Amino acid sequence: MAKGAVMNKLERSQLLEDYNSLKQAEASLPARWYFEDAHYRRELAEIWRKNWIYVCRARDLGDALSYRTVEIGDQNLVVLRDGTGALKAFHNTCRHRGSILCAKRQGRLKSKLIVCPYHQWSYAVNNGRLVKTTSFAEPIGFEKSDYPLFRLAIEEWRGLIFINLDRNATWDAGKLFEREASNLANHPIEEMVTVHEWRKIMDCNWKTFWENFNECLHCPNVHPELSDLVPMYRRRIVDPRDVPGWQDRIGEDDPRYRGGLRTGGETWSMDGSAQGQVIASLTPEDLARGQTYASALPSMFVGGYADHVRIVRLLPLSAERTELVAEWLVTEQAATAEDYDVSQIVDFAILVMEQDLAACELNQRGLHAAPLEHGVLMPEEYHVKNFHNWVRRQLPDDDE
Amino acid sequence: MAKGAVMNKLERSQLLEDYNSLKQAEASLPARWYFEDAHYRRELAEIWRKNWIYVCRARDLGDALSYRTVEIGDQNLVVLRDGTGALKAFHNTCRHRGSILCAKRQGRLKSKLIVCPYHQWSYAVNNGRLVKTTSFAEPIGFEKSDYPLFRLAIEEWRGLIFINLDRNATWDAGKLFEREASNLANHPIEEMVTVHEWRKIMDCNWKTFWENFNECLHCPNVHPELSDLVPMYRRRIVDPRDVPGWQDRIGEDDPRYRGGLRTGGETWSMDGSAQGQVIASLTPEDLARGQTYASALPSMFVGGYADHVRIVRLLPLSAERTELVAEWLVTEQAATAEDYDVSQIVDFAILVMEQDLAACELNQRGLHAAPLEHGVLMPEEYHVKNFHNWVRRQLPDDDE
Amino acid sequence: MAKGAVMNKLERSQLLEDYNSLKQAEASLPARWYFEDAHYRRELAEIWRKNWIYVCRARDLGDALSYRTVEIGDQNLVVLRDGTGALKAFHNTCRHRGSILCAKRQGRLKSKLIVCPYHQWSYAVNNGRLVKTTSFAEPIGFEKSDYPLFRLAIEEWRGLIFINLDRNATWDAGKLFEREASNLANHPIEEMVTVHEWRKIMDCNWKTFWENFNECLHCPNVHPELSDLVPMYRRRIVDPRDVPGWQDRIGEDDPRYRGGLRTGGETWSMDGSAQGQVIASLTPEDLARGQTYASALPSMFVGGYADHVRIVRLLPLSAERTELVAEWLVTEQAATAEDYDVSQIVDFAILVMEQDLAACELNQRGLHAAPLEHGVLMPEEYHVKNFHNWVRRQLPDDDE
Repeated sequence: MAKGAVMNKLERSQLLEDYNSLKQAEASLPARWYFEDAHYRRELAEIWRKNWIYVCRARDLGDALSYRTVEIGDQNLVVLRDGTGALKAFHNTCRHRGSILCAKRQGRLKSKLIVCPYHQWSYAVNNGRLVKTTSFAEPIGFEKSDYPLFRLAIEEWRGLIFINLDRNATWDAGKLFEREASNLANHPIEEMVTVHEWRKIMDCNWKTFWENFNECLHCPNVHPELSDLVPMYRRRIVDPRDVPGWQDRIGEDDPRYRGGLRTGGETWSMDGSAQGQVIASLTPEDLARGQTYASALPSMFVGGYADHVRIVRLLPLSAERTELVAEWLVTEQAATAEDYDVSQIVDFAILVMEQDLAACELNQRGLHAAPLEHGVLMPEEYHVKNFHNWVRRQLPDDDE
Repeated sequence: MAKGAVMNKLERSQLLEDYNSLKQAEASLPARWYFEDAHYRRELAEIWRKNWIYVCRARDLGDALSYRTVEIGDQNLVVLRDGTGALKAFHNTCRHRGSILCAKRQGRLKSKLIVCPYHQWSYAVNNGRLVKTTSFAEPIGFEKSDYPLFRLAIEEWRGLIFINLDRNATWDAGKLFEREASNLANHPIEEMVTVHEWRKIMDCNWKTFWENFNECLHCPNVHPELSDLVPMYRRRIVDPRDVPGWQDRIGEDDPRYRGGLRTGGETWSMDGSAQGQVIASLTPEDLARGQTYASALPSMFVGGYADHVRIVRLLPLSAERTELVAEWLVTEQAATAEDYDVSQIVDFAILVMEQDLAACELNQRGLHAAPLEHGVLMPEEYHVKNFHNWVRRQLPDDDE
Repeated sequence: MAKGAVMNKLERSQLLEDYNSLKQAEASLPARWYFEDAHYRRELAEIWRKNWIYVCRARDLGDALSYRTVEIGDQNLVVLRDGTGALKAFHNTCRHRGSILCAKRQGRLKSKLIVCPYHQWSYAVNNGRLVKTTSFAEPIGFEKSDYPLFRLAIEEWRGLIFINLDRNATWDAGKLFEREASNLANHPIEEMVTVHEWRKIMDCNWKTFWENFNECLHCPNVHPELSDLVPMYRRRIVDPRDVPGWQDRIGEDDPRYRGGLRTGGETWSMDGSAQGQVIASLTPEDLARGQTYASALPSMFVGGYADHVRIVRLLPLSAERTELVAEWLVTEQAATAEDYDVSQIVDFAILVMEQDLAACELNQRGLHAAPLEHGVLMPEEYHVKNFHNWVRRQLPDDDE
């Protein structure tokens, strides 16, 4: 609706109600959920072993027989391509006496068999079936068919690999993203090239990270550089429609109200320039947004920008430690352009992420206060509320 | 009563009974109380969150709007002066989503507001009232008055700041010290200058430290230098009246029997000299004692000497780790005297404390012996018994 | 029975049954027993505090009044010789307030008294009786006879010292070894000289180590050098009689079938040479075996070779950490021979042990897989089955 369009009174009053933010104060999750070990173990079982978890990009995995291992909490898993190149995933555990099968972070199988390094039991890479033991005979009561690898569900979404420790989990790409991904349609994620990876251990609970991700109330003070680039963030909101009266500003070009980057800004980089590598398939609407996010709880989000995509994965290490891995993707053209400096986009995102991590770690430390039962959500934190609802749905019987 | 005064038989026999030491063997605390995590957490709740805990000297805190943070077990707290210079203390936790408010060990607020570094909620420094959020509106059901900082009780005793996590705790300076402090009346603690601070992590339970502090049975072997300086310590006692028959020695000048320092010794320093800086306000009786102790369980003791005061604070880090901080105080005159060498008093106390710490750590390691239910207290350990009684009173329902 | 001896059909069919390996598939121990802390503490109580645990060689302990301390799980113990040289062992804990008595790993008492370094309680080295306190008097209700050191059972087998935290445990040298030790009769263990010691912390449960020790299914791939030296190990077995049909190979000289070392190999050393120091008392049968093992669960095994003996001790540090100490013993003659290079035997065994440790650590990491209830034992793992039976017998009420 363009600015100035005629509305009757009723329409306008409905629209006034029609803004994103929370109208009611909402209790945050119980503080103890962020540090108690018993609750952490429950979340591993109910959340991390039942949802789709991002592993890596399919093209970074390598070709047939390449593998990667990943640890989700205390579960060591192996993701690989079988002999035909199809994706498969298993618990990285031999059925004989429980050894790890693939010891390295990434590598390549020597054949279509996964061979345990301990006693050389061999499993078919395509389905995990036990093909061969190394004993002179099979004992009575032993059937190889009873000892396949523990298989995981594995799926691919636009070149991103997701696994689910619940092998019978249903795959519905439409429900994969809690903050949905349709706005990323014009980013050619599948074909882009990974040009950098950054790994960091955060001293905070994984939920503390997501809460930070899901609001911009903290932006002006925590992210001064980012708030220069995205002027609306100085208003502590993430969408023009977050506040009542937003309709009155429709059509304004002031980036504080229309969203998007500062005048002249093209992308999330140190100087705001896309270095001539704006992705050709992006529409004016895509570019106007400045940044486009989709998040697949509990493990990842994707950010789309004018010249690149950034994927951030997080995995829990313990109740108060979380691993973060960020990947930067650019087009083949940018990746090979002599005058495209990747550090422009890498340095800027690391600057912002380090600021977020420091905030998350402060948040984590304060959650232990004995009289603190839970925090409270403010209007702008409606995405945080959605996240909390999502968490609560996974833990139906947990007493708060 | 002077030596040789006439007493009838009855009086004498009563006096013979009238010595400090324990007459009965007493069971020590259960060995598991020193290392079991569940018991440690109970002590945090029942002892460390309900008693007055020493933080620092009021003059070292700084002037208006200065703050210090301190961790008591898993509780992070902030102690500060408001705009008028009055002392205040709060949980160092924002009521919004639980972030730490003051991130540094010490610092100074920029205004009369405590501003959360995460989302800039602002609290009045004088009472912790929530003054301002940063949201565009307050949601329904949200009243700022419902979200003040969690306030702690804070009091000052002779320039020393104590806090209590139980905000409704009653303050009674007369009951603050379990080993009472009246003998320190002539030490001008309030006006003295802190000239040194020493911090150490001890691998022992906090109670192991207090038991060591409360007896001198260990002195001759653990503290040879100290036992030279305080000859009575070679007798493994801390007071001439600790043994039967002490009345017969009344008036003797032998420091083994009268207490106090060796002949010629003036203070607890490497060479026993007070370097001409004996505190003017001390009486001959004060000086004759050689050292004067007061202890405020569970967190601190004060030692008064001829030329200085030493304050030792301890805070639990875990069941088997404790932080110790020692502060040395001298008069303004000594602090500015060119020929007063502070290392004389600092080095001597560190020598003694390191010896104690080594003993405490040996004690801690041995407590795990499976058949050891508890130790036993000997006559000289009457102050240890008092300490145990104090601990037991705090944990009325604990099964031993 | 020599090859080609006449047997009737019945005898032969009975012999065909008569091979060592398991006929039935057997469930391994529950996977959680290898990492759950509650189960670990149960094993400390039921296994490590009730069985005979190897400490060190008697001749390495030293003469009268020498001591060693050792930690079994969370229990600190002292093993010593009294004034007559007799072996004694106690909890390394003073009965007064629980201090460690002997602070060093090894040392020598100054008298026939064990004197606590904290308050100098003195205990008779020969029986642990409390001889003297340092108090001016004994309190009412205190009898020194009530406070002896907590004594352990201690015994010697062929110069090796074993202790039992259950003081009333019965000693039966014939039952000490789960894999029995009669084949080591001709190794002069008592008189040999310890020429090297190697200490290593393994990131695995202690049972993971024993499973590895008890089978050679892993040998060809994990131990290529060892499988060159002991060709039968390439067949993944440890005894010619492990497989059906072994009788047909009786008398063959091929080391793949007869067992023992490769042709020309003399001992477990880098080049297979015994450097002219074959132990004189060994019989041709002893030498033909190549290696001879005995294991005393849960803490040690002895390996006998042509020119040396190796003793390996393991002690638990936590559910997933175990300490290994290996000792190399040679004859006095070899120890003093100018041309005998100990590194030949030391380097080879460390090579093999490092390979085993890497396998054990892989095994440990994989055991956490959520769907893994337990592994399965294959025919060759009959010694592992015996080990499991032994463990289960110690934990009669544990639910699997």
